[in-house]
Amino acid sequence: MKIVLAPDSYKGSLSSIKVSEIMKKAIQTVDDKIEITMKPMADGGEGTLEAFSKAASHEKVEFRCTGPLGEERQSWYIKLNEDQAVIEGAVISGLPLVPESKRNPDHTTSFGIGEAILHALEQGYRDLLIAIGGSSTNDGGLGMLQALGMKAYDFQGKEVNIFGKDVATIQDIDFSTLDPRLETATIRVASDVDNPLTGPKGASHIYGPQKGATVEQITNYDWALAAYGDLVEKACGKTIANLPGAGAAGGLGFAFLAIGGRLESGAKLVGEAIQLPEAIRDADLVITGEGQSDEQTMYGKAPGYVSEVANYYKKPVILLSGSLGAGYESLDQVFTSCFSTVPAPTSLENCLENAEANLYQTTKQIVKLIDS
Amino acid sequence: MKIVLAPDSYKGSLSSIKVSEIMKKAIQTVDDKIEITMKPMADGGEGTLEAFSKAASHEKVEFRCTGPLGEERQSWYIKLNEDQAVIEGAVISGLPLVPESKRNPDHTTSFGIGEAILHALEQGYRDLLIAIGGSSTNDGGLGMLQALGMKAYDFQGKEVNIFGKDVATIQDIDFSTLDPRLETATIRVASDVDNPLTGPKGASHIYGPQKGATVEQITNYDWALAAYGDLVEKACGKTIANLPGAGAAGGLGFAFLAIGGRLESGAKLVGEAIQLPEAIRDADLVITGEGQSDEQTMYGKAPGYVSEVANYYKKPVILLSGSLGAGYESLDQVFTSCFSTVPAPTSLENCLENAEANLYQTTKQIVKLIDS
Repeated sequence: MKIVLAPDSYKGSLSSIKVSEIMKKAIQTVDDKIEITMKPMADGGEGTLEAFSKAASHEKVEFRCTGPLGEERQSWYIKLNEDQAVIEGAVISGLPLVPESKRNPDHTTSFGIGEAILHALEQGYRDLLIAIGGSSTNDGGLGMLQALGMKAYDFQGKEVNIFGKDVATIQDIDFSTLDPRLETATIRVASDVDNPLTGPKGASHIYGPQKGATVEQITNYDWALAAYGDLVEKACGKTIANLPGAGAAGGLGFAFLAIGGRLESGAKLVGEAIQLPEAIRDADLVITGEGQSDEQTMYGKAPGYVSEVANYYKKPVILLSGSLGAGYESLDQVFTSCFSTVPAPTSLENCLENAEANLYQTTKQIVKLIDS
Repeated sequence: MKIVLAPDSYKGSLSSIKVSEIMKKAIQTVDDKIEITMKPMADGGEGTLEAFSKAASHEKVEFRCTGPLGEERQSWYIKLNEDQAVIEGAVISGLPLVPESKRNPDHTTSFGIGEAILHALEQGYRDLLIAIGGSSTNDGGLGMLQALGMKAYDFQGKEVNIFGKDVATIQDIDFSTLDPRLETATIRVASDVDNPLTGPKGASHIYGPQKGATVEQITNYDWALAAYGDLVEKACGKTIANLPGAGAAGGLGFAFLAIGGRLESGAKLVGEAIQLPEAIRDADLVITGEGQSDEQTMYGKAPGYVSEVANYYKKPVILLSGSLGAGYESLDQVFTSCFSTVPAPTSLENCLENAEANLYQTTKQIVKLIDS
């Protein structure tokens, strides 16, 4: 029997790699003749590169870049093949890189992501996958675009700085100075949110608070990004600020649209890059999972994508999640079976503490059943 | 595919019949071609007759008897065949029949159980299965033995009354007046406890409190039952007060030993009477379960017995319980797989409230997996 393990992370307790390792150990305890293919998943947020590292042959590329607070730092992306590289925004200017006390979108920048792209173009990669979730920024991608050659000027005609607070000072934008190699590159961006750049569902209102923005800042950013959006649209000749996903990662989604990037489902993008469909095609059973599943799991989440592929190839697919929440009954439509790892009535804290043991035990029970 | 459903009750939420009905409904939703045999189990406590009624062809026998407080009441036992009857102590003098405010072993009696036996003997049944769990009494089986003809006298040579408080007044006991038909009957008693009649692990100390005995009463009963035990042992010529199970059901175990009854595992006795082994022999899969499982489940509990039979016939057996507690990992040795019905971190109250929905869902997941 061949089993593909394609879990997402159990947020708050286990990375997707750890989850697939625990599942693997449990399966081998039951029957060491079962062939296991580990394809830890990600949805384009934090942990995307880690998952890639485990699921696909690759090469790690280290480079120096500008961190979220403007500091110089070491970061990395991965090379999948001669043409293809995967960049994760979270390890360049992600929220986890900013100490809680310093979280303030005024002082963060997406500049390093632009530098990563330049570095990749320099190395000759022309097919770029970029995971932008987990950002610390609300700069509308200003920093990234500047790194890529865009010029932004204030009312005195001086080039503005690269941080969130500088967006409000921009009076003019020039796209003609953009790195020409971008024209020859395919940029696919993993994005699972539908928010537009501005407005009540925009980047500032929806994601500002978690990045440390005050109520006053949120209002100001919403106006500033609207004006900035107009200037960028004019400069690049596209109407994109209201497209779904423009508001992803503090407006980075918008900036990518401006330079011709495509926003795609993170799970699908990751899954295809790690050749999950091929692995599932050759398997007898697929196991996926995540920290908490509910009705939403079907729509764009990693396990939902895994189930789509499995159903396409008519393979049984099990959802094994930390917990099953509201409306999980409807998941019956897309998963063969859904199980939680919770053994008894208990607190969330207790479940997180025992996440590893509970997952190990439940995997064992499932495999013993299948193998019996 | 043929599935045997042999769950115990989920104590505090669902009877074993209800559990098997929910499981059946879930299985049929998945695949209505699956053949289902319902064998709800019991372990000799409350609900034993109910389980029998559902799991075996039978006839209900109604009769009048003495209730736990000496009142006259209607009760019932069942006839399995021409020779065999099943009597449940809990529906005659059980704790649930005594209002909480009146729970006091001084004023309860096992007399009705003796009357039930007499009634069964009268009808010609000679193979009696008796479930004695859930008793309200601590009378050492005095009442039952009196109903069966035993005489007990006080220091004035007057016959004593039939209640718990009368045990302490007994000076002499006469077994010669016992109903002679008992000699020709086989009495098997479902008992899953190992307690002796008296002492720190005896009936009074261990089970007195749940029957409403005060600390003072417990001490007094322990002495009174010791003296009574000596008199009964002399009268019947057997040394039985320290045998495992003598302390079951307030000393009823002891009284049954005195009249030649055999104490057996309740689950085994029930299982054999409902012909569970035959059903499992012909099945492809067995599902059992209980409210809460832990390491103890293997030892004498209904699901433990079901697993023994299934393992004997080399059939996969699934434990599906309300929750899985301490040391449940060790159940891996005897069950193919163990699952809890808990979908997420939550309170016990919430689990009890949603017991039916959770059981239905989890059964469905398991059967979808097997059936896939």
